Amino acid sequence: MKPIYLDYNATTPADPEVVAELLPYLAGDFGNPSSGHPYGRKAREAVELARERVAALLGCDRTEVIFTGGGTEANNLALIGVALANQERGKHIISTTIEHPAVLKPLERLVELGFSVTLLPVDGTGRLDPEAVRRAITRDTLLISVMHANNEVGTLQPLREIGEEAREKGILFHTDAAQSVGKIPTLTDQLRVDLLTVAGHKFYAPKGVGALFVRRGVKMHPCLLGAGQEGGLRPGTENVAYIVALGKAAELASLRLASEGPRILSLRDHFHERLKALVEGVSLNGHPVERLPNTLNVSFRGVIGAELLERTPEIAASTGSACHEGSGELSGVLKAMGTSREQGFGAVRLSIGRITTAAEIERAAEVLAQRAGELRAGKR
Amino acid sequence: MKPIYLDYNATTPADPEVVAELLPYLAGDFGNPSSGHPYGRKAREAVELARERVAALLGCDRTEVIFTGGGTEANNLALIGVALANQERGKHIISTTIEHPAVLKPLERLVELGFSVTLLPVDGTGRLDPEAVRRAITRDTLLISVMHANNEVGTLQPLREIGEEAREKGILFHTDAAQSVGKIPTLTDQLRVDLLTVAGHKFYAPKGVGALFVRRGVKMHPCLLGAGQEGGLRPGTENVAYIVALGKAAELASLRLASEGPRILSLRDHFHERLKALVEGVSLNGHPVERLPNTLNVSFRGVIGAELLERTPEIAASTGSACHEGSGELSGVLKAMGTSREQGFGAVRLSIGRITTAAEIERAAEVLAQRAGELRAGKR
Repeated sequence: MKPIYLDYNATTPADPEVVAELLPYLAGDFGNPSSGHPYGRKAREAVELARERVAALLGCDRTEVIFTGGGTEANNLALIGVALANQERGKHIISTTIEHPAVLKPLERLVELGFSVTLLPVDGTGRLDPEAVRRAITRDTLLISVMHANNEVGTLQPLREIGEEAREKGILFHTDAAQSVGKIPTLTDQLRVDLLTVAGHKFYAPKGVGALFVRRGVKMHPCLLGAGQEGGLRPGTENVAYIVALGKAAELASLRLASEGPRILSLRDHFHERLKALVEGVSLNGHPVERLPNTLNVSFRGVIGAELLERTPEIAASTGSACHEGSGELSGVLKAMGTSREQGFGAVRLSIGRITTAAEIERAAEVLAQRAGELRAGKR
Repeated sequence: MKPIYLDYNATTPADPEVVAELLPYLAGDFGNPSSGHPYGRKAREAVELARERVAALLGCDRTEVIFTGGGTEANNLALIGVALANQERGKHIISTTIEHPAVLKPLERLVELGFSVTLLPVDGTGRLDPEAVRRAITRDTLLISVMHANNEVGTLQPLREIGEEAREKGILFHTDAAQSVGKIPTLTDQLRVDLLTVAGHKFYAPKGVGALFVRRGVKMHPCLLGAGQEGGLRPGTENVAYIVALGKAAELASLRLASEGPRILSLRDHFHERLKALVEGVSLNGHPVERLPNTLNVSFRGVIGAELLERTPEIAASTGSACHEGSGELSGVLKAMGTSREQGFGAVRLSIGRITTAAEIERAAEVLAQRAGELRAGKR
C-alpha cells in the first residue's frame, strides 16, 4: 500500500494523457527538430504545436515561449539573461525574501557581477505589500522579480499591482510561477508580467521541462551557449517528447482549470475543517484567502512537524520545500514571515492535486489528528 | 513508408528497453528525489542506480557523474564551470577549430570574460596533431578541450596522447564525447580525461538528458544556480525518468558495444564499397581508419549533397550537423579540414545505428548511386 500522496507542491505524476501524448516521440517519431528530412519535420511540428498550447495557457503569443530544462533554468534565464542584456537600463533589482533558491541564488550571482539587489520582507501571511515595492524602486531599478505563489505556504502575491507600477516606470517584471501555473489562472497580460517561469512537473508534465515567457521586445542573453535552438536563447537538441508533454499538460490545465480548481479548493478547505474538528491547536501558515487552492500548511501546537510525519507513514507530505528537506533548519520562508520557532517547526505542508480523493482527505485528517494527539500525550 | 533513417549522428530513437525502464517513473513512481517519504526515496534510488550504470560505461566512480539536461549543458559546465573555478591555475585554453558550437560558443564567452583561447587546426582527415597541442601549451594553460569524435565526419582524436601531455603539465583535459559514447569505448582513464561530456540522445536515450564526468578533485562552479541537487552543480528537480533512461542506455551500451560495434562497422564499410561500386567519383570525408564505426561522410563528384538528398526521399540523412542544417554555408568542419568547396558542398553524412539493416544499406546505396548519376546527367 502506497502512502496517500499529499505532496503535489513537491512534484506531480505525469497525467496519463500527457504520457500517452509524449510516448510516440521517444522512439517512433524521434527525429531531431533541426533535421530537414521528414523525421525532423515531424518533431519540429510537434514542438511548435506544444508552443502554441503553452502560449494559450499563458495568454501570450507562441513566439514569446522559450522551452527550458525546467523551472530553475527558466529562472536563471529570466534573471541573469535579462540583467546582463539590459544593463544600460540600470543595475538594481527588487525581489522578496521568500523566493525559491532558483531565484535567490541567481540574484546572489548578479550581486557578484556588480548588480545591487533589494529583497523585500513579507507580512505574517507571507504577503508582499505593493507599496513597499513602490518605495524600493530607484532610478536604477532594472528588474522586479516576485513569485506568484509561494511553494511552502501557497500565499499569492499581488502581481498585477506590482506589475502596473513596474510598467509605469519602465521596469521589467518577472514572476516565478512554478507553483501557480496549472493551479490558478496565469494569463501574462492580466498579471502584467514581462517574464514568467513555468515548471512542467508542478502541473502533471514530467520533471525536466519548463518554459519561460518572454514578452516580445524584451532583450535577453542566453545562459547556456551552443547552437541556435530556441532562437539561440536555449541551445541544445530540443527535448521533443517532454516539450510535447508540457504542451499537453498546458492544454489539460486550460481545459480543466475551471472545474478542477473549485474541486481541489473545496477538498482542501474540508481537510482544514476536519483537522480543526479532530484536534486542538491547529493553526494555518500562510494567507487565509489569497492562497493556492491546493495548499494547506498547518502547525499542530506542541508538535514537531517532522516527528508528526515520521509517525504517520500513511501519508506522504513534507515539512516544507522538498529542496530543503532534511536540513534541520527552520524554513527560510516561515522565518521571513516572522513565524515563531515553535509554530515553524510544527509546520506540515499538505498539498493536494488532481488525483486526490475525498476519502484520502478524510483518512489523512484522521491519522494526522490521532498521531498529533499521541505525540502531545508523550507517547513515543 | 518512412524513409530509411541514416542520420543516427543527429539523433537516435530511444531503445525499447530504455522506454520500458523510464515509463514507470513518469506516473507511478513519480516522486521528487529530494522528498523524504517513500515516493521520494524510490526516485532517489532510481537516480543513484542510473549514476552507477553511467559510471560503469565511463569506467569511473559514481560520485564523478553529474546529470545534466543534455550534451550542450554538460559542455557549458565543463568549460565555463571549470574555467571560472580554476582561474588561479591560468587563463589560457586550448581547443580545436572543429568543435561543436556547444564548445566553441562557451569558449567565446570565456574570451569575453578575459580568458585566451587557442583553436588548433586539423589535417585533411580532420585529425589533430598531438604535437601541435604540445607546442600550444603555455605556463598559463588551464584547460584543453578536444572532442572525441567529430559529429560530421566521425574522425577520432588522439585523446590519450593529448591527455598524457596535459596530465604531465598539470592541465585539465576535457573531451566532448557526445558522438562517441555508446559507439566506441569511452573509459575515462584510458582516454586520460578529467572531464567528459555525455549526450543521451546520441546513444538511444531520449533528447534532453546528458551527463558530465568530473574527475574527483576537479574544482567546479555551477552554470545554473538554485537549490542543492547534483551537489549544487546542477540545481533543479532531477529528471528522474530520463536519468533512469540514460542509465539503462549506458547499461545497454556496456553490454552491446563488443557485438554491435563490429556489426555496424561492417555495414558501414559495405555501404561505402557498394557506393563506390555503383557510381564513380565517390570520395570519403574524414579519416579512413581513425573514425567512428557508424559514420560515412562522402562526396559524389560534381553533385551537390543537398540536391542529392532532396532528390532521394527514400532516405533520411543530412549534409552535415543537424545544428547547421539549412544555413547554405559550407560546413565549418569541412572548411577547417581544408576540403575544397566542390567536395564540401558534395558532402552527405550517412550515419547508421542499432536498427539499421543490411537490406536498408543495400537499398540506400542503390538509390543514392542512381540519383547521383541522374543529377550528373543533368536530369532535373
